Amino acid sequence: MKFNYHLPVNLIFGAGKIEVLGEETAKYGQKAFIVTGRNSTKKTGLLDKALNLLEKSGIEYVVFDKVAQNPLTTTVEEGAALAVQTGCDVVIGIGGGSIMDASKSIAFMVKNKGDISDYIFGRIYGETALPIILVPTTAGTGSEGNNFSVLTNPKNGDKKSLRTNAIYAKASIIDPELMMTMPKSIIASVGFDALTHNIEAYISKASQPITEIQALYGINLLSENLIKVYNDPKDLEAWEKVTLASTLGGMVIGISGVAASHGLEHPVSGLKNVVHGKGLAALMPTIIERSFKSSPEKFANISKILGGKDENDCSKVLGKLLEDLNLNITLGEMGITHEDVDWMAENCMKVSMASLKNNPKQFNCEEIKEIYHDCI
Amino acid sequence: MKFNYHLPVNLIFGAGKIEVLGEETAKYGQKAFIVTGRNSTKKTGLLDKALNLLEKSGIEYVVFDKVAQNPLTTTVEEGAALAVQTGCDVVIGIGGGSIMDASKSIAFMVKNKGDISDYIFGRIYGETALPIILVPTTAGTGSEGNNFSVLTNPKNGDKKSLRTNAIYAKASIIDPELMMTMPKSIIASVGFDALTHNIEAYISKASQPITEIQALYGINLLSENLIKVYNDPKDLEAWEKVTLASTLGGMVIGISGVAASHGLEHPVSGLKNVVHGKGLAALMPTIIERSFKSSPEKFANISKILGGKDENDCSKVLGKLLEDLNLNITLGEMGITHEDVDWMAENCMKVSMASLKNNPKQFNCEEIKEIYHDCI
Repeated sequence: MKFNYHLPVNLIFGAGKIEVLGEETAKYGQKAFIVTGRNSTKKTGLLDKALNLLEKSGIEYVVFDKVAQNPLTTTVEEGAALAVQTGCDVVIGIGGGSIMDASKSIAFMVKNKGDISDYIFGRIYGETALPIILVPTTAGTGSEGNNFSVLTNPKNGDKKSLRTNAIYAKASIIDPELMMTMPKSIIASVGFDALTHNIEAYISKASQPITEIQALYGINLLSENLIKVYNDPKDLEAWEKVTLASTLGGMVIGISGVAASHGLEHPVSGLKNVVHGKGLAALMPTIIERSFKSSPEKFANISKILGGKDENDCSKVLGKLLEDLNLNITLGEMGITHEDVDWMAENCMKVSMASLKNNPKQFNCEEIKEIYHDCI
Repeated sequence: MKFNYHLPVNLIFGAGKIEVLGEETAKYGQKAFIVTGRNSTKKTGLLDKALNLLEKSGIEYVVFDKVAQNPLTTTVEEGAALAVQTGCDVVIGIGGGSIMDASKSIAFMVKNKGDISDYIFGRIYGETALPIILVPTTAGTGSEGNNFSVLTNPKNGDKKSLRTNAIYAKASIIDPELMMTMPKSIIASVGFDALTHNIEAYISKASQPITEIQALYGINLLSENLIKVYNDPKDLEAWEKVTLASTLGGMVIGISGVAASHGLEHPVSGLKNVVHGKGLAALMPTIIERSFKSSPEKFANISKILGGKDENDCSKVLGKLLEDLNLNITLGEMGITHEDVDWMAENCMKVSMASLKNNPKQFNCEEIKEIYHDCI
């Protein structure tokens, strides 16, 4: 038993906790660079509320609302340049996973020179970033609980994480009430993403005792509550549990990594800008079907929590859950064709080697192509 | 569901991990103030090994070996003065709970002026300390996983924690092999302390989901392995689990606090310098007997893990475990008399209010006196 466990983020969890945004930010800076999306935080009034809270605490701010789904390295570069130019000294990310991931990389690029792709591929290193505060508005990514920032390079479609201790948030304000405005289809796709994080960190070859118990707890919470919030988005008690599971999912992948499903999904959304949770939904049952014999005990534990009998029906119970979430789709339905498979498989070997290594069953390039073809 | 979860310590866990001491220390300073005990790390050769590792990494050091069981505020003051005088810039604590607790307060008092008792009782605050590296040699206190430093004031017998985020270790090197030289009686008393941490954080009114699952896991690990290492101190696999449970115990009390057993024990060891784990052993079965009806479900869960049936036999199964560890002793056998009870109960109300408030059943001063009398 050998492991490292390090999670320096101050997790501030609870309904209504958004109220501490101003005082929490004031601990780290005086002028905030607020990263948010183009629409949703404006429509829901959350952005206005956040600006109000910052004003009350005497914090100046600049709003950067250009981040979209599957955030681009180029958007990060643009944001970092603006943050430098406007003299911001703290970054706040308010939104879903794309927003939080972009915030982290913007904070990083304010303090580090050069091309972000060089940091992503580990060709150069940086150890500092502006202090970061994260406010998730989707329960899925768990980005508030780890040091990943997944970006897509628009020049070549590479979708890969920047991963450095510099981009742990100082504090994450995790307010389950903020989840209650998500549209149903988003609830399903990000909720399924959260489930895959807990599953993949649990089965990961880099798993360790602390992440294993957290991940099993996360799977449990989602098994009991994801369908509840999908069917009744006003159920706050269920939202608290789904939100906690989402943060746990982020925490455990931050320490134990993801596995083949994330590894194979990144080339899909890197190529065609599909919704990440949908890409996972199309891939995961097939990948589990081809992985479970390499770690039968763990897949049996997952299956039992999800209502199955043992490792043999793990893929099946997951498929049933996807049906209940209206997420039983194929890569083909998302615009992926058999002609895309060669590029995706080769890109997977390039950007996802660490995730593939974490998988209980080791897939080679030919096996990866087979999985893609079967999921189209 | 509202909670904070913050644990900035880098936990480096595993047999043989002591080898990273030099490189880890070099991240934080160039001259180490090494806090250790009078004997055991010298006898076992661990101190020499540590000094060697530091030398290899080019770290200078000063050794301070004056800390004893139930460390004193005066020893901390002496240590801090020496650390300042010798220009040390990082503190390393190598030893059991007393050593680690003293290390933390020494690191704190290097950076903060005045009387440490004022910080302990929250009359003044400090936010900085020298960087701290901890190397536990007993599996019990869990001090490596939290921001507590329990000290005794020799002028008045007050035994109470300094608690500030400044004294989280930067890194804790938790090497189960270092536990294997503990004498049997120490294995029992510190192992039981670890169990009480997990139990008390779990039943605490300040408990929260993440600490609850960690604490239950810690209770499970100890239930299955504490007797194993007591009967066969060479069983490394069992030591790994006991050591992990001990660190978990420290982590969970750091976030969710202790309860009445620790609350009532501090006046006992503050007054008569008894072994902390033995004081807990004398008190806990009686305290559980008078607390379990206030939180039946949680005590039932604990009881079941320890081999009992439900909440009604929780105290009994704990008593059985104490017998197996040769720890079934009374306060009377440790030199406490009925004449000491009034002082202890009043001191308990003074130093342990937070722990008493965490207990599922609220005890008043008269009830506390009754417990002490019954445990003599």
